[in-house]
Amino acid sequence: MSAPRVFSGQEVSQHNNRQSCWIIVHGKVYDVTDFLDEHPGGSKIILKYAGKDATKEYEPIHPPDAITTNLPLEKHLGSVDLKTVEKVEVVITSEERARQERVAARPPLSEVLNLHDFEAVARQVMPEKAWAYYSSAADDEITIRENHAAYHRIWFRPRIMRNVTTVDWSTTILGHRSSMPLYITATALGKLGHPDGELNLTRAAAKHGVIQMIPTLASCSFDEIVDAAQPGQVQFFQLYVNKDREITKRIVQHAEKRGIKGLFITVDAPQLGRREKDMRMKFEADDPSEVKKAGSDGVDRSQGAARAISSFIDPGLNWDDLKWFKSITKMPLILKGVQCWEDALEAYDAGLAGVVLSNHGGRQLDFARSGIEILVEVVRELGERRGLKFPNEKFQLFVDGGVRRATDVLKAVALGATAVGVGRPFLYAFSSYGFEGVDKALQILHDEFEMNLRLLGAPTIKDVVPEMVDASNLGIHVVSVPSDRLYESNYESMQPARLRVIKTKL
Amino acid sequence: MSAPRVFSGQEVSQHNNRQSCWIIVHGKVYDVTDFLDEHPGGSKIILKYAGKDATKEYEPIHPPDAITTNLPLEKHLGSVDLKTVEKVEVVITSEERARQERVAARPPLSEVLNLHDFEAVARQVMPEKAWAYYSSAADDEITIRENHAAYHRIWFRPRIMRNVTTVDWSTTILGHRSSMPLYITATALGKLGHPDGELNLTRAAAKHGVIQMIPTLASCSFDEIVDAAQPGQVQFFQLYVNKDREITKRIVQHAEKRGIKGLFITVDAPQLGRREKDMRMKFEADDPSEVKKAGSDGVDRSQGAARAISSFIDPGLNWDDLKWFKSITKMPLILKGVQCWEDALEAYDAGLAGVVLSNHGGRQLDFARSGIEILVEVVRELGERRGLKFPNEKFQLFVDGGVRRATDVLKAVALGATAVGVGRPFLYAFSSYGFEGVDKALQILHDEFEMNLRLLGAPTIKDVVPEMVDASNLGIHVVSVPSDRLYESNYESMQPARLRVIKTKL
Amino acid sequence: MSAPRVFSGQEVSQHNNRQSCWIIVHGKVYDVTDFLDEHPGGSKIILKYAGKDATKEYEPIHPPDAITTNLPLEKHLGSVDLKTVEKVEVVITSEERARQERVAARPPLSEVLNLHDFEAVARQVMPEKAWAYYSSAADDEITIRENHAAYHRIWFRPRIMRNVTTVDWSTTILGHRSSMPLYITATALGKLGHPDGELNLTRAAAKHGVIQMIPTLASCSFDEIVDAAQPGQVQFFQLYVNKDREITKRIVQHAEKRGIKGLFITVDAPQLGRREKDMRMKFEADDPSEVKKAGSDGVDRSQGAARAISSFIDPGLNWDDLKWFKSITKMPLILKGVQCWEDALEAYDAGLAGVVLSNHGGRQLDFARSGIEILVEVVRELGERRGLKFPNEKFQLFVDGGVRRATDVLKAVALGATAVGVGRPFLYAFSSYGFEGVDKALQILHDEFEMNLRLLGAPTIKDVVPEMVDASNLGIHVVSVPSDRLYESNYESMQPARLRVIKTKL
Amino acid sequence: MSAPRVFSGQEVSQHNNRQSCWIIVHGKVYDVTDFLDEHPGGSKIILKYAGKDATKEYEPIHPPDAITTNLPLEKHLGSVDLKTVEKVEVVITSEERARQERVAARPPLSEVLNLHDFEAVARQVMPEKAWAYYSSAADDEITIRENHAAYHRIWFRPRIMRNVTTVDWSTTILGHRSSMPLYITATALGKLGHPDGELNLTRAAAKHGVIQMIPTLASCSFDEIVDAAQPGQVQFFQLYVNKDREITKRIVQHAEKRGIKGLFITVDAPQLGRREKDMRMKFEADDPSEVKKAGSDGVDRSQGAARAISSFIDPGLNWDDLKWFKSITKMPLILKGVQCWEDALEAYDAGLAGVVLSNHGGRQLDFARSGIEILVEVVRELGERRGLKFPNEKFQLFVDGGVRRATDVLKAVALGATAVGVGRPFLYAFSSYGFEGVDKALQILHDEFEMNLRLLGAPTIKDVVPEMVDASNLGIHVVSVPSDRLYESNYESMQPARLRVIKTKL
Repeated sequence: MSAPRVFSGQEVSQHNNRQSCWIIVHGKVYDVTDFLDEHPGGSKIILKYAGKDATKEYEPIHPPDAITTNLPLEKHLGSVDLKTVEKVEVVITSEERARQERVAARPPLSEVLNLHDFEAVARQVMPEKAWAYYSSAADDEITIRENHAAYHRIWFRPRIMRNVTTVDWSTTILGHRSSMPLYITATALGKLGHPDGELNLTRAAAKHGVIQMIPTLASCSFDEIVDAAQPGQVQFFQLYVNKDREITKRIVQHAEKRGIKGLFITVDAPQLGRREKDMRMKFEADDPSEVKKAGSDGVDRSQGAARAISSFIDPGLNWDDLKWFKSITKMPLILKGVQCWEDALEAYDAGLAGVVLSNHGGRQLDFARSGIEILVEVVRELGERRGLKFPNEKFQLFVDGGVRRATDVLKAVALGATAVGVGRPFLYAFSSYGFEGVDKALQILHDEFEMNLRLLGAPTIKDVVPEMVDASNLGIHVVSVPSDRLYESNYESMQPARLRVIKTKL
Repeated sequence: MSAPRVFSGQEVSQHNNRQSCWIIVHGKVYDVTDFLDEHPGGSKIILKYAGKDATKEYEPIHPPDAITTNLPLEKHLGSVDLKTVEKVEVVITSEERARQERVAARPPLSEVLNLHDFEAVARQVMPEKAWAYYSSAADDEITIRENHAAYHRIWFRPRIMRNVTTVDWSTTILGHRSSMPLYITATALGKLGHPDGELNLTRAAAKHGVIQMIPTLASCSFDEIVDAAQPGQVQFFQLYVNKDREITKRIVQHAEKRGIKGLFITVDAPQLGRREKDMRMKFEADDPSEVKKAGSDGVDRSQGAARAISSFIDPGLNWDDLKWFKSITKMPLILKGVQCWEDALEAYDAGLAGVVLSNHGGRQLDFARSGIEILVEVVRELGERRGLKFPNEKFQLFVDGGVRRATDVLKAVALGATAVGVGRPFLYAFSSYGFEGVDKALQILHDEFEMNLRLLGAPTIKDVVPEMVDASNLGIHVVSVPSDRLYESNYESMQPARLRVIKTKL
Repeated sequence: MSAPRVFSGQEVSQHNNRQSCWIIVHGKVYDVTDFLDEHPGGSKIILKYAGKDATKEYEPIHPPDAITTNLPLEKHLGSVDLKTVEKVEVVITSEERARQERVAARPPLSEVLNLHDFEAVARQVMPEKAWAYYSSAADDEITIRENHAAYHRIWFRPRIMRNVTTVDWSTTILGHRSSMPLYITATALGKLGHPDGELNLTRAAAKHGVIQMIPTLASCSFDEIVDAAQPGQVQFFQLYVNKDREITKRIVQHAEKRGIKGLFITVDAPQLGRREKDMRMKFEADDPSEVKKAGSDGVDRSQGAARAISSFIDPGLNWDDLKWFKSITKMPLILKGVQCWEDALEAYDAGLAGVVLSNHGGRQLDFARSGIEILVEVVRELGERRGLKFPNEKFQLFVDGGVRRATDVLKAVALGATAVGVGRPFLYAFSSYGFEGVDKALQILHDEFEMNLRLLGAPTIKDVVPEMVDASNLGIHVVSVPSDRLYESNYESMQPARLRVIKTKL
Repeated sequence: MSAPRVFSGQEVSQHNNRQSCWIIVHGKVYDVTDFLDEHPGGSKIILKYAGKDATKEYEPIHPPDAITTNLPLEKHLGSVDLKTVEKVEVVITSEERARQERVAARPPLSEVLNLHDFEAVARQVMPEKAWAYYSSAADDEITIRENHAAYHRIWFRPRIMRNVTTVDWSTTILGHRSSMPLYITATALGKLGHPDGELNLTRAAAKHGVIQMIPTLASCSFDEIVDAAQPGQVQFFQLYVNKDREITKRIVQHAEKRGIKGLFITVDAPQLGRREKDMRMKFEADDPSEVKKAGSDGVDRSQGAARAISSFIDPGLNWDDLKWFKSITKMPLILKGVQCWEDALEAYDAGLAGVVLSNHGGRQLDFARSGIEILVEVVRELGERRGLKFPNEKFQLFVDGGVRRATDVLKAVALGATAVGVGRPFLYAFSSYGFEGVDKALQILHDEFEMNLRLLGAPTIKDVVPEMVDASNLGIHVVSVPSDRLYESNYESMQPARLRVIKTKL
């Protein structure tokens, strides 16, 4: 292999059209001419940067190695002398200017009282596409909302007259200390929300003594995230299994070498779900004439950011693969995305370390049930069939999705979960305020845990027991009889007493 | 019978009043003077075309043979030399012009992401009367909405770690291959939505390998629709049984001769339901003074398009008729509109090929239950009483009503249905975009089936089993306790953190 | 007793103040000076007519004999020569003028499609006070709405393939033929809505062959209503039992003599309920300064029209009184307002002819259950304890409240009711259109019964059996968990495909 | 201890800054310089009064002894000659002026028809901070609303034909006569709503013969409230247990000596809950620049009024403390805030006089169940396990939270409660109208009890039995399946008949 060539910016700039299209990313030059029609994000956005430096556009929406992985080696042309590259002039639209004004007007962090507030701020200050990617979910977005709603069908039975002068909500997860019974779960493309991406989470996790799960589809590279950890800081890794098992093997063994303490294999995404809010955003942001053309040539480029980054995932993954995983790593193996007791039992019988009862934040199969609802059946059936008690050290149950309050977490703990994964709230926190946002989010949870343990009458996490919740309504999914619109339009609502009208002086 | 006379346009044009009223339809001349007061659509609309060519007005809202069937033979006066007929000058109202502008502004098909979108577009671009006819349902329209809502009470229990690299959602319906577990069910008056009417469905069905059920009340003639089919394309026929059994016999035997593969006898419409949205539309569109007069003369012409076309249906149809049907045709017989297990059992014992559990899209008896809810009791009772398992080759169960997503279809399949009928979504698809709309709608369903089978962990339709759904809430019909309006008006809602107000520069 | 004096209008007109206040009603002169402070409607409205003819104001809101009953005989001064009485000049307010314009703009009756429509029209064309009196109910008006909502928890199980060429929805009530399984139930103060008051109902009942129940608190006198009946027309009588049993005896025996066929004794109103919408209306309509004064003198005149007319009702009525009733009349006795099976059983054991399961249209005890819900427990318990089957000739069950559709009635019939009482819809019908309104309302019900019997597969009322309904949800009264306002304000709703924005030409 | 110094106003006025900050409260001088950063309400509000008389600001939001308790003795500098103190000029903001106009426009009391109305008025006429403090509750305020909603899941089964000429709704509570089965429960900081604070309640309680529970955190001093009682007027005392048991002992024994008849020990507040509406109000009212600074210095002053006054409460309180309580007082002991049958049983076994089933008005643990729901399980379990019947003289059950109508109270009584505590409605009553408001509120309840006992067929409170309610739905906590927004946006609602458009004359 010969030494890579070094181009001048001027040379690159001549390949600025559909016939010959080069782009610069991170100082490297790539020939993407043949790739234009395959780009999941459409050719238009690439052509905008034809002959130019596309790094700023590329970075937040691609994992770092996306281009090197997807482009054949012979299209990796070499590097460029960045001093000779003309700066791409960024035109700020009026929408973007308005957004930046909203960013400047963020409420001070002291006014953020709960996790909802981060979402309220993020919705206003994030770029529209980023908001659409983070907030969207599958189909009619029923499951994403059910994830939260399910917690509202569980009520507390608190105990009184217990000495709660000191309360302790720390626990252990896969044998590792955690200051709270939760972890920061894996979510993709952190740089969409903040230039530091997933590193915001790493730093806040360190400060608060909680565990971060590093995603396969991070915007920061895996090593960056591991490097950012403090000595002794525990990290897990979320794995999408590649069709090419050699790639997967390399990734897994690298993770183990870097000290990752648990491998969470995603099993609910043989294909990524339809996230139509994300898909629709694409059309709205693009030039209609282009979209129209695209729509009529039979090529589907409408799938939004999610699918664009996930075509490597193996839909053939199955139970037989577990033996292989055990052969390549000693890390504890956990399946992420288990959705019924039958599969939890199979995971247990296969000797895994645990399962995450999850529907992928409502982003995969719509009308999948919430993790918290599945938890109840898993605890019951594995209790009856294998005599297990939960929380259980040997086979740990996790749930994620829909959590906004420490009370949600404590409901899951009472029902048998070891810990709960929290994702979007932290994304919204750093999208709004960077590291300080995540720091504050964890502080809020800290305060809520302290208060709620006291109010539950539970000095420690072990004292949070099944008898403290009434989950008997959890499985009830009602849809009201459609309303009688004519009757209701005729009904005249009662009115309260009203102030007298004050006559204003002329 | 003498050769029919040929009139000149001028001659016809002199019979332009209540005393002598002739109209031209499809080049034939009819004397409708005595029919004026019997016309279900009122006399006014006929008188508008007295002495003129009424074909354009007539066509979309009548089955092709409506006039020949309803008018005594002696009023069929002969044909007209169309060259001599003055064109009816069509005055375009401002509402119609606004509608045509909306048609021109339809979003490109590539932006249509799901079946809901067709309805959203159709509502804007269809003529008001056509929208009212398609979208309306019985009484307070409770059942039409329940049909959709019922699917939302069924939740998935997906399986993981199954090899879903290739998935196959094709099936067989009455022994015929279908690329998906659904068929295009019969709906009336297709030309209200698009000039090609039901032919849009025939063509798209051919392209996608699905089965179309031809309606008795099509706007296109039965033979037109059959002629439009590709070689080998399977079609079913939906039958309204005429009081005159000879007519029915002729229709049925003609259908069989033309290759129809299944006869779906509608049994839920001894009389057509009150569709008040459709009825109200009539008044709104008409001249108030006329309506007032009509209202006071005791003649009820207020029944909308639905009843206008259905007076021939026999309310005396009963179980004894089945023997006769078997004597006149060898086509498989299916009852369409069965609504409880008792009648499904009776149909099975009578040796029929299956039943459609349906409430006629909510257009007949309000507070009839959804087909999907009935399916559960039918499967249970026919299992207990006759030892049947479903899906069943010999006695097939179908449901229709309320389907908008492939997930809805898969829920029905999991619960024992062979296939699901889809109606309105395709009407809205061609009303918005013609053939391309239906083509796109089927493509969307194709994509959804592929994704959902993967996410369910079901490589084929046979793998979609009862354990994959939780239907335990299906029979729960709640109406909330009426709200305490005074309490609620006093409750002050919580507010999220807000952006600081930015002082604008002067 | 001397011959009554005849006054001149001028003489009366001098008693026009608080010190001496005479008024004329129906040509009679009354001295109401001492009554001013006792008038439930306040003194102000009387003083407005001091010395004048108050008939027009008096008539619609008082039963005909209210003044003669409440005023001591010595205050009945004599009659007046009406020719000498100055006409009271009626000042029409701008609100009243606007209302009269709305009356003129009523939609033609042919556009009224269902019973809801009468209410929609009535709400716009009735005087505010009259609307408040008719539409109001007890406390927070939960029960009035529950009465309607309860029917929405009952769903049909229709049968197919039954010969429904002719259908017959007539029945017998207490042995008397009724063209439908319903009767016009008793409601007070009909003249508030229309000058002919209850006579509108009598005439329409005659035309349609249904039974009218005459109320104790009618605006027309009992004899007027009976006189207006056609030969052979059946009428029932609703009785409020007077503390003075002699008055009650006189009323009952008079009713029997006039041919009344059933005596419905109201048992749910020992005291009339709080109808706060009605009470509030009073304040809104009155002069604030007056009200303030009234409010501070400790006298409560705020009870609205309802209580003003009902102080004679006996709260001491009890089971022992039934023997006495049997001793004074041979009419069948029915208790109106039974609300649990225990009391229905007691009525049966006491040998009565039936009970009306009713909560007085939601106007008495709020959170009383709906009649239709009580029906189910009564049928079950009287079946178990006394072996009764329903509908039952010897002991008939009626329900009332919340009915708007023939389907509601048929649900009650399927569950065991002999017939259903309908009240407010007929009030709204004649308040909007007089006799023609009630006529049309009954015609609508006629059409609905015909259609629904066909669609149910029930040729006659006897074929409407318990298996035709699913009432298993009837007893479920849910109130949703209060909504999570912060979560919901953060959730961004999905949007359908949108029309492209059309650039308008300049 | 030397005689306290007497300062001149001028001398005090020189200590008007952060370096030396004195304030005057009730004629006493305090050096609060070192306390500035510890003040839960922030330093800003104190600095506003540096060197001045802060009494008016201090009084409504602090218990009378807050400053003496919190400030070391050496900072109690002495008294001041008030004649020499400059009046603090109160600048009335435009918001305050608008509020005072609303106060002037309050509807007359005669227009207040129910307890809801007081809240509607209070919301408009109270200062924002006071409203926020009274109306706020914990976290997402789910439980506060559930407290009210729970009553709506209980329905009546009234009896008829019982002699209810006279009805009597009086009862006894802990052996003391009460004119109604309710008491005025303890709520903090009465002067926020009205200058007379809790004394409004004392006076109205005397007039109506009901019992007031005096709160630990009253704005008036305990002795003031006891002194305001009429001879023989019964009062209870609510106790927050101090970490310093000597203080608690002194308070309890003083209460007993003053004649308090029952000691209600609060057990649901080892730490006060997050009341975010209250917390948010603080930021909104403060200077943003200050808040920002505060937010960034790591000191949390954001906890609102609630926590500011409660830091003395002992989270170590436990069952062992009961023996000590029995040793220091002979008053009946009742635990306030019991939330499951297990703790009620423990209280019974410990020989207490009763328990209040309460979640502190929804202000502590969100998703705690309502008292009325807990009541049902307590009655059932203590019946099964100890053979108790309720209501029970020896061990009395109380509930509080969410009550707005006498019907709510009667539901609790039917289910076994001795009486019900009512809090916020009385706060809103005196905040709107002072003593007259509470007087009117009790009169309204009086009227409602009278009416409802009649309508229930219960001559006395003892006749209000379990069979009179259907509480079978009480434990059902549903959250609807999230709505299908696309489907719903497509559904076109039915429209009622409409008035014709009237052409206006030109």
